[in-house]
Amino acid sequence: MHAIQDHYPAEFAHCYGCGSANPHGLHLKSFIEGERTHARFTPAAMYSGGYPGNVYGGLLASLLDCHGTATAAAFAYRAQGRALGDGGAPIRFVTGSLKVDYKRPTPLGIELLIEGTLRSLEGRKAVIDLTLSADGEVCVTGEMLAVQFVAKA
Amino acid sequence: MHAIQDHYPAEFAHCYGCGSANPHGLHLKSFIEGERTHARFTPAAMYSGGYPGNVYGGLLASLLDCHGTATAAAFAYRAQGRALGDGGAPIRFVTGSLKVDYKRPTPLGIELLIEGTLRSLEGRKAVIDLTLSADGEVCVTGEMLAVQFVAKA
Repeated sequence: MHAIQDHYPAEFAHCYGCGSANPHGLHLKSFIEGERTHARFTPAAMYSGGYPGNVYGGLLASLLDCHGTATAAAFAYRAQGRALGDGGAPIRFVTGSLKVDYKRPTPLGIELLIEGTLRSLEGRKAVIDLTLSADGEVCVTGEMLAVQFVAKA
Repeated sequence: MHAIQDHYPAEFAHCYGCGSANPHGLHLKSFIEGERTHARFTPAAMYSGGYPGNVYGGLLASLLDCHGTATAAAFAYRAQGRALGDGGAPIRFVTGSLKVDYKRPTPLGIELLIEGTLRSLEGRKAVIDLTLSADGEVCVTGEMLAVQFVAKA
C-alpha cells in the first residue's frame, strides 16, 4: 500500500518532515482508510523535550503539519473522484495555519499514532482535524487550514 | 550576554529545539531586550519544505515554540522583579497551545529573526505573540498560550 506522500510529484517531495526525496528527513508516511487518515512514527531519543522522557513540542507540531497537508490532498482527490497518483494534474496542499493543543506530555520511545479527518473542503481550502496519540491516549490535538497549492505557470 | 535558555535548570535543558544539554539539537538562543525578545537562526539546507528553497513548516513551528516558552519565562522573571538565573526557584514554561499562521513562504539559506512580545501574564498563564521574519519581511506569525511548569514534589 502506497503512502499519500509517495504520490507527491518529484518536485514537491523535498520536505524534511515527509518528503521521499529528502535523505535527512523524517519520512512520515500517511494513509487514507475510510473517513480517516493515519500515520505512525516513533521519534528518536534525541527529540526530547526540555524534561527528558517526553517528546519536544516542535516535533509534534511537525508531525501534525505533514500529516495534515497529506490528509487534505487525499480527501481532495477523493472529492474529485480521482485516485491518488492517477497521472492527472497533482493535488498538493500547503499549510495556511495550524493550531496545536498540547493536552498532556507525549512519552518518548514508543510509537505515536497521528490521525486526521476532514471537517470541510471548499474550493482550495480544507479544514482538517488532527490527533496524536500514544498508547491509546490522545496527547495532542490540532486544527489545520490547508490551502491547495497552484503552481505558477 | 547569556541567552534565556542558558538559565534553564540542567534537568530541563534537554529540549531538541533549544536545550544546551541536547548534543543533536538546534540550540535556539533567545534574548530579552526591552519589551521584546529575539532569536536568530539559519536553518540548514536539509530543512526544506516540499518545494525546494523554502523552509519546512514544522521547523518554523518549532522555532516559535521554543522561543515562545523562553519569552514567557523571561517576562515572568521580570514580573516578579527577579533576574534570570538569580539562583532562586527556576521559572519554566511549557506550551499549552500554539497557533501558527504561515503568511508567505520562508526562504531557506538566510538568517531568520524570531521575535516575541508579552500580551498577558496572569497566574501561571502567559499569552505570547510571535513573528518570524526573513530579510525584514514577516513570513510567519504565532500566538502561544504558555503555562508555567510546576515540578511535582
